[in-house]
Amino acid sequence: MSRPSEFELIARFFAPLAKAAPGAFGLTDDAAILRPSAGEELVVTADALVEGVHFLRDDPAETVARKALRVNLSDLAAKGAKPLGYLLVLALPDWPGTDWLAAFAKGLAEDQRKYGFVLHGGDTTATPGPLCIAVTAFGTVPAGQMLRRAGARPGDLAFVSGGIGGGGGGVQILKNNRPGIPPEIADELVRRYRLPEPRLALGAKLRGLASAALDVSDGLIADLGHIAEVSGVHIAVEAARVPLVAGLKELWAGEAVAKAVTAGDDYEIAFTAPASARAQILEAARQSATPVTEIGRVEEGEGIALMDASGREIPLPRQGYTHF
Amino acid sequence: MSRPSEFELIARFFAPLAKAAPGAFGLTDDAAILRPSAGEELVVTADALVEGVHFLRDDPAETVARKALRVNLSDLAAKGAKPLGYLLVLALPDWPGTDWLAAFAKGLAEDQRKYGFVLHGGDTTATPGPLCIAVTAFGTVPAGQMLRRAGARPGDLAFVSGGIGGGGGGVQILKNNRPGIPPEIADELVRRYRLPEPRLALGAKLRGLASAALDVSDGLIADLGHIAEVSGVHIAVEAARVPLVAGLKELWAGEAVAKAVTAGDDYEIAFTAPASARAQILEAARQSATPVTEIGRVEEGEGIALMDASGREIPLPRQGYTHF
Repeated sequence: MSRPSEFELIARFFAPLAKAAPGAFGLTDDAAILRPSAGEELVVTADALVEGVHFLRDDPAETVARKALRVNLSDLAAKGAKPLGYLLVLALPDWPGTDWLAAFAKGLAEDQRKYGFVLHGGDTTATPGPLCIAVTAFGTVPAGQMLRRAGARPGDLAFVSGGIGGGGGGVQILKNNRPGIPPEIADELVRRYRLPEPRLALGAKLRGLASAALDVSDGLIADLGHIAEVSGVHIAVEAARVPLVAGLKELWAGEAVAKAVTAGDDYEIAFTAPASARAQILEAARQSATPVTEIGRVEEGEGIALMDASGREIPLPRQGYTHF
Repeated sequence: MSRPSEFELIARFFAPLAKAAPGAFGLTDDAAILRPSAGEELVVTADALVEGVHFLRDDPAETVARKALRVNLSDLAAKGAKPLGYLLVLALPDWPGTDWLAAFAKGLAEDQRKYGFVLHGGDTTATPGPLCIAVTAFGTVPAGQMLRRAGARPGDLAFVSGGIGGGGGGVQILKNNRPGIPPEIADELVRRYRLPEPRLALGAKLRGLASAALDVSDGLIADLGHIAEVSGVHIAVEAARVPLVAGLKELWAGEAVAKAVTAGDDYEIAFTAPASARAQILEAARQSATPVTEIGRVEEGEGIALMDASGREIPLPRQGYTHF
């Protein structure tokens, strides 16, 4: 195996990624300094990817790196935060060699440029087990304006950005080949699994408009269920309005909606807002060039339900993805 | 295996640890808010522990938890920072059951109380591999006063807190039984391996006094070598002055100093300071009830050397611990 030493790895691949951050000290110190501007608060979140759980060893190293950043950027987006920087913890088994690490660093560099996000530090260690990538992301919001999960009120509408089910469809295609799906549609599903699109522009515009928001990682129903739970309300989602990604009806036939809303890995923003804000929401969607669909309503009560066209609840075998 | 679900795990074991932090929202949101006070900067650092690399499966869950916090608190200490909070990423294999997790959370709670450190969030995921614990720690310093690795100048003195070699001695005893070491000394070495003591009180007093500082994790020689490298100086350490932990001469005989200064896992603060600050350093040591030993001097040149009593360099097979 060809692999640089721990310190060569940092100097060669990671230090260049920290150049734009004065508080990262070129990754030559034990810690970094973060300085939110006056009137800003720091939003912090962490999400890890584990080989065999969140990505496959055969996935391109560049997209693994970008997904590790994007699942965290998606959390910042859903909170209305502007990306600032991140720490990267890598537990490295033997198998990633120099080529893999170079491609991984290239993927990080690409999304740093794309999202204005800068490496500030981290830790690199050996592991006998699967590759584990933990990213802690920092963003900023004007003080007091972080979008919360708590805050949905009866009478509010429920919305979601982009399309639902693409991540789940993509992982199924990677695991089970492509059962009669046109290649260009299958490729697009795989792309959505590997490279979710953090909705940062939309998230920033939802500050002060949305009453509650989160990103869809466990599954649309499970995640809106989290909003319902901490807000103390019921949310009814109309199955016919859920914006399914193209190709899922071919992949999952009659189960397409039920599978898409419980599959997870979408990294869209699900949010609620007062009905009076509907026009402003649609304007925010237009300005941020992000599709937004109204999918349901917030009611008195508790829990989450997927409703058919005649107003009956569609039973779901599970609400979403859980790790254990 | 008896194990709570992902959400039960968070609600039952981790949410209580976040109560004291308003910005953690009871772990019911995707992100936390950090608000350094006016005039303060945020110091951020991350360190991971991997089962089989940094701790052993048989180690008590409580000390594993406390070590995961302490290796990070030690970085904050060496930077002169005051602990504020942390994010915890857990990649959990099948084997830790409810009892293990309860003891792990108890260990976290204990050190939270001891060090004024509060859980702010994180991520929990399944893994097929070894248990992986990544902590991102946040602390605060008055703006511009973080202790750096860069800053040692020729003429400065080199110091270290506490005792060196205890972590390396402890891990050897755990792996190879106890070759003729009195049990109470062996137990103390194991305790130092499992529960290093972050030198927070000393670190805070070194702000404005030390010219460079870091914590000893890779090994005293390797870590002072990092200071020498980024400061552009040479550091000469006198072997006879290195404060060896008791029992290492029995464990390692004639190799005790060479092994102790390259073993790592000490989590003491190694630092440099102008000779004119010697009296203030000793006063800071007294006030913080932390032993501090002068062990060498900073000179023109580069690199690090361990010197014998006659001023000759002692050759070392390696400078410290590296992961790969």
